Amino acid sequence: MLRVDGRENNQLRECTLTLNVNRYAEGSCLVSLGHTRVYCTASVDDRVPPFLFNTQQGWVTAEYGMLPRATSDRNDREGGTRVGGRTHEIQRLIGRSLRTVTDMEALGSRTIRLDCDVLQADGGTRTASIVGAYVALAQACGWLMEKKVLKRWPLLTEAAAISVGIVAGEPVLDLCYTEDSQATVDMNVVMTAKKEYIEVQGTGEGRPFTRDEHDAMLQLAWSGIMTLIEKQKQALAAVGPYKKG
Amino acid sequence: MLRVDGRENNQLRECTLTLNVNRYAEGSCLVSLGHTRVYCTASVDDRVPPFLFNTQQGWVTAEYGMLPRATSDRNDREGGTRVGGRTHEIQRLIGRSLRTVTDMEALGSRTIRLDCDVLQADGGTRTASIVGAYVALAQACGWLMEKKVLKRWPLLTEAAAISVGIVAGEPVLDLCYTEDSQATVDMNVVMTAKKEYIEVQGTGEGRPFTRDEHDAMLQLAWSGIMTLIEKQKQALAAVGPYKKG
Amino acid sequence: MLRVDGRENNQLRECTLTLNVNRYAEGSCLVSLGHTRVYCTASVDDRVPPFLFNTQQGWVTAEYGMLPRATSDRNDREGGTRVGGRTHEIQRLIGRSLRTVTDMEALGSRTIRLDCDVLQADGGTRTASIVGAYVALAQACGWLMEKKVLKRWPLLTEAAAISVGIVAGEPVLDLCYTEDSQATVDMNVVMTAKKEYIEVQGTGEGRPFTRDEHDAMLQLAWSGIMTLIEKQKQALAAVGPYKKG
Amino acid sequence: MLRVDGRENNQLRECTLTLNVNRYAEGSCLVSLGHTRVYCTASVDDRVPPFLFNTQQGWVTAEYGMLPRATSDRNDREGGTRVGGRTHEIQRLIGRSLRTVTDMEALGSRTIRLDCDVLQADGGTRTASIVGAYVALAQACGWLMEKKVLKRWPLLTEAAAISVGIVAGEPVLDLCYTEDSQATVDMNVVMTAKKEYIEVQGTGEGRPFTRDEHDAMLQLAWSGIMTLIEKQKQALAAVGPYKKG
Amino acid sequence: MLRVDGRENNQLRECTLTLNVNRYAEGSCLVSLGHTRVYCTASVDDRVPPFLFNTQQGWVTAEYGMLPRATSDRNDREGGTRVGGRTHEIQRLIGRSLRTVTDMEALGSRTIRLDCDVLQADGGTRTASIVGAYVALAQACGWLMEKKVLKRWPLLTEAAAISVGIVAGEPVLDLCYTEDSQATVDMNVVMTAKKEYIEVQGTGEGRPFTRDEHDAMLQLAWSGIMTLIEKQKQALAAVGPYKKG
Amino acid sequence: MLRVDGRENNQLRECTLTLNVNRYAEGSCLVSLGHTRVYCTASVDDRVPPFLFNTQQGWVTAEYGMLPRATSDRNDREGGTRVGGRTHEIQRLIGRSLRTVTDMEALGSRTIRLDCDVLQADGGTRTASIVGAYVALAQACGWLMEKKVLKRWPLLTEAAAISVGIVAGEPVLDLCYTEDSQATVDMNVVMTAKKEYIEVQGTGEGRPFTRDEHDAMLQLAWSGIMTLIEKQKQALAAVGPYKKG
Repeated sequence: MLRVDGRENNQLRECTLTLNVNRYAEGSCLVSLGHTRVYCTASVDDRVPPFLFNTQQGWVTAEYGMLPRATSDRNDREGGTRVGGRTHEIQRLIGRSLRTVTDMEALGSRTIRLDCDVLQADGGTRTASIVGAYVALAQACGWLMEKKVLKRWPLLTEAAAISVGIVAGEPVLDLCYTEDSQATVDMNVVMTAKKEYIEVQGTGEGRPFTRDEHDAMLQLAWSGIMTLIEKQKQALAAVGPYKKG
Repeated sequence: MLRVDGRENNQLRECTLTLNVNRYAEGSCLVSLGHTRVYCTASVDDRVPPFLFNTQQGWVTAEYGMLPRATSDRNDREGGTRVGGRTHEIQRLIGRSLRTVTDMEALGSRTIRLDCDVLQADGGTRTASIVGAYVALAQACGWLMEKKVLKRWPLLTEAAAISVGIVAGEPVLDLCYTEDSQATVDMNVVMTAKKEYIEVQGTGEGRPFTRDEHDAMLQLAWSGIMTLIEKQKQALAAVGPYKKG
Repeated sequence: MLRVDGRENNQLRECTLTLNVNRYAEGSCLVSLGHTRVYCTASVDDRVPPFLFNTQQGWVTAEYGMLPRATSDRNDREGGTRVGGRTHEIQRLIGRSLRTVTDMEALGSRTIRLDCDVLQADGGTRTASIVGAYVALAQACGWLMEKKVLKRWPLLTEAAAISVGIVAGEPVLDLCYTEDSQATVDMNVVMTAKKEYIEVQGTGEGRPFTRDEHDAMLQLAWSGIMTLIEKQKQALAAVGPYKKG
Repeated sequence: MLRVDGRENNQLRECTLTLNVNRYAEGSCLVSLGHTRVYCTASVDDRVPPFLFNTQQGWVTAEYGMLPRATSDRNDREGGTRVGGRTHEIQRLIGRSLRTVTDMEALGSRTIRLDCDVLQADGGTRTASIVGAYVALAQACGWLMEKKVLKRWPLLTEAAAISVGIVAGEPVLDLCYTEDSQATVDMNVVMTAKKEYIEVQGTGEGRPFTRDEHDAMLQLAWSGIMTLIEKQKQALAAVGPYKKG
Repeated sequence: MLRVDGRENNQLRECTLTLNVNRYAEGSCLVSLGHTRVYCTASVDDRVPPFLFNTQQGWVTAEYGMLPRATSDRNDREGGTRVGGRTHEIQRLIGRSLRTVTDMEALGSRTIRLDCDVLQADGGTRTASIVGAYVALAQACGWLMEKKVLKRWPLLTEAAAISVGIVAGEPVLDLCYTEDSQATVDMNVVMTAKKEYIEVQGTGEGRPFTRDEHDAMLQLAWSGIMTLIEKQKQALAAVGPYKKG
Repeated sequence: MLRVDGRENNQLRECTLTLNVNRYAEGSCLVSLGHTRVYCTASVDDRVPPFLFNTQQGWVTAEYGMLPRATSDRNDREGGTRVGGRTHEIQRLIGRSLRTVTDMEALGSRTIRLDCDVLQADGGTRTASIVGAYVALAQACGWLMEKKVLKRWPLLTEAAAISVGIVAGEPVLDLCYTEDSQATVDMNVVMTAKKEYIEVQGTGEGRPFTRDEHDAMLQLAWSGIMTLIEKQKQALAAVGPYKKG
């Protein structure tokens, strides 16, 4: 059976990572995954949240937003205190995922803020955000290394993410919006370059899912994430002479 | 190695379900799991959200709150528009989980609102909320059946949830707060009585986790959930002569 | 004429005070008055509000909340900045009443926060909150005495409260919800064990009231409050070996 | 013993009522009581709140505000959702008091909104607001009568209010701000021209009060209110040829 | 062609400035311009905003509000975080205009807060606010001079403002509300006594405007503003004896 | 004297307009003016605001936002109810300007919503937003014409905008951020292709300005705007076969 856009079940959409899209940010990356576009920036802040005062540890945090016409129908702006539950959940996921690959002692007493703003959405915006935010974070770490602010490279390994799901009874990789709205099971997976899991979030809203389905989705996610991590490495290598520790 | 409260790695804390703790609600259950106490009510509302207007389908939704002194240190009240990201995430999880076991056509054009308020917290409040909310929901469905509002029983199967994690390098079942704050990996699992998964949420904030660890945690969760579903059935049977379809 | 629940005009509903319902709070009491249930905790905080900086005086403050299904029809949650006028009025009353019986110099530079959360409402929730909050406050003071934080007992006397009103033309004590909604005059009275008044709030929304009616309501309130203060003393004595100054 | 401004214990401050201070409102009155100035308007609205839909009854409601420099030190503006507890309490008191003297069936299916804005505060702003709001309300009723919208006069009697308290151990009438901040007991009384009580709110924040003190304060309040009602009648008579029913 | 109130195209409405309308404020002025009434106060605050910490410079800021029945139909109160776009725009204009005539080094490290509250609105409230706020500001500066807090007079020159517009095809001065709602072009002009411009805000919402129309409106504004500045000087001189530098 | 980026006083920065940057919007344009980048979309909505119910007229409205790292230092997100005064002022200006060139009867009973989101800011974001929003609006009108929803072309003429100011004593065109922060006078001008003014907003915050300076700034603005209107026409012609009326 063919997917809505003609892809194989285990095929990613076309993905490009454009770096240096913002002249002020310490790192920036525009992720394009199919029709999904996320504009990611990394901002270095010399302060840390209160619970880290008087430690030598750093912090990584993320915010996620959508422009009003990122979607087929226009949505009201959110922001400030009017951030919905879905947005909160996504930005907590992005921040948590990237903290897992960061050595907070190597980062030292500073915060890196990752902003992921969706210019155009066609499914997979939260996982595309993680892919782009990792690149922006790596650039910001390179900037801190070049400025000799850091003594050693603070990222433990690469991290990327992809969505998988059960659509029309079959496990598929990288769902576009049309597939996402038809999926009976939806799973987001975040992994490291070392093939370890950072996050597994599988949800059966339409119906529960079996252990076999669970395992098939994890397998698809693994292959997609390894491809994305390769792209991250190439994109960072192409722009860069920042030196890893 | 002994756990902080002397349990085996695969041992649940003591769990009791007290029904009919609220004289107004169509269903109610006070869950006690170790020192965690969650007061759950189910409220039947004849309206449905706007996206279901002009369908014959129902809806199930949840809200989650914590009394200020549910925790060791007092927290400020949240509510209204000042609901934090964690609360949003939890109430979305509870609602989604219970919708998965509900036949929305059988429920018909009405909403069941589940309120889960934590009187005392000692880890596992979101999974305990799902355990209690299922019971309150089942009572509310029984009430609707007895009043002949529904033609057939709207719950497809039972649902329950538990937390698992990696503490001191070992997979353990049903983490108390002390364990939760030491865990390097934390996972919440929601399952049905048919051994299918509704939700798998595994997070490695301290460090990523391997596939073997993932599988070990799923195994522990399965055994805990099956015990909890048995308790739900007994508790409902004890109070009830409402008739399943 | 019989009251809706068969009581005499001067008869209280059944009242029980259960202490130590929360393992974290420095004081706690579940008040049950007829079908009304209020869960009260006292939390000791080492800070004081800004207007008391650089004095040696303490503070007592209260918050009041209702679980969504505390009432016959479910109410939306309030909290944060969305606290209604009624809630503000009640929590100001509770705090003011208990400050009147507290010796702020004996309490020293700390705040005791009283949280009164209504699990089930059937009239008289604000006065039941005062009854329970006094007990939680007294326990917290006992805890501070035992820890030798305080040099002398900081409570000047006991305090309790009850509602009275004019229902069907007659003055009655301790109105349940059905009576409250039929009352033409409603009065809340807070008194000390020394038979002095802390607060008298009489309101004629249906119609104004005469001086004779006013005096009859005060008389009923006095008898009810003295009974409640006796219950407070017994409940505290039963749990306690904390020593008054 | 002399009061701070030389008055006798039972002496009101100078009070003037200026009508027609707003060209748009259906009724308006600037109350001047000592240095306290409250600008009151009555606005007729053809709608009623939802709980009165499909009845033939009207509604009276009030809002209360303070200009930022109404007080000795400037206060931040409140309004919208940022209305403090004190403001809520006061506007509920004003609305409730004037509803008690309004025949809602005679008023018919409309709302009269009373806005009381304090231009300058020197104690007694809530009771001065009731004095002025009654006058504005009466003018608005007169306007409705003249336009033949109402068939009969909807006010049952006059209403006014005053503050009393215990200052330096003695009961005094009409406290200015300096006295108010020194008072150990504070009481606000609202009465009708028929010498009945609409509201009695006595509070002992500094210390509790005895029954004798309570009775002495009620006596002072009665004499002050009767004087104010006389002034209301004169002020309305001076401007007006609206006809009572 | 006659204007709605019979004025000439270049004729101001009657304008009176009443000083000392508030006993607490360091400066105060009630502006009456036709039926428009704005109550302006100036409050001296010893703090400055964070961006001026560690400089020796002062600040001038403004807030603008409208009482609910200032207008023909009653409006909901705004304030706190619920301040609309129009209000923001106006208070930014007032603050900016008066900062332009203030020597911030002469003012020294303090803030003067100008509150402009509209009691009755009939067009031109923002420009009337500037007229009155200047007077209140000048009084507050005089107060600071008399107290020897300032070494030199901190106001560089007088400032006033007026509205002009194109109504029925003709340029007119000082639009009342009826004219304002019919105007195709609306312009607010703020000038100094030295005939320089502080602010020119011309808007063609109905239609664009030509350069000739633009110039004719500026000419009218100039003549009106010079008259208003004369009135400010007289009013300040009349209450007088604070000494300019 | 040379400008900071070497331009002549009457020279615009490089400007490009990229159309069709969003696949869902009915019109879209990415404006690039020097380093300033604004992402503009036009969304057609079949509803109109309440004050246009039961008329046959349409509406045009705008929202303006900035991504957190659009600026040199990261700013907190705003949105929902937490929109600052500057943002309100700008979005009101954009909406008003484009309404002036729209024939609301030709547009018919629908709203076009213009979203202007700043990806990177270097001065002139509000005027760049008007330039791009006009293009997006024209595309949306073209889309409505092609779908035969409209009978005649609803735009009366083109509109564009630019900033001018006095920097180092000289009038200059199109200020970049560095110039903007040094300017003593700042002016934003919006004009039509017919050389008429839609909006003139001149502000002297640093000092007032003379009539000669005012006239010199208007002259510079006129030349810049005519160039920008030419670019708008070319960009629309390049993508287009939509037919003007």
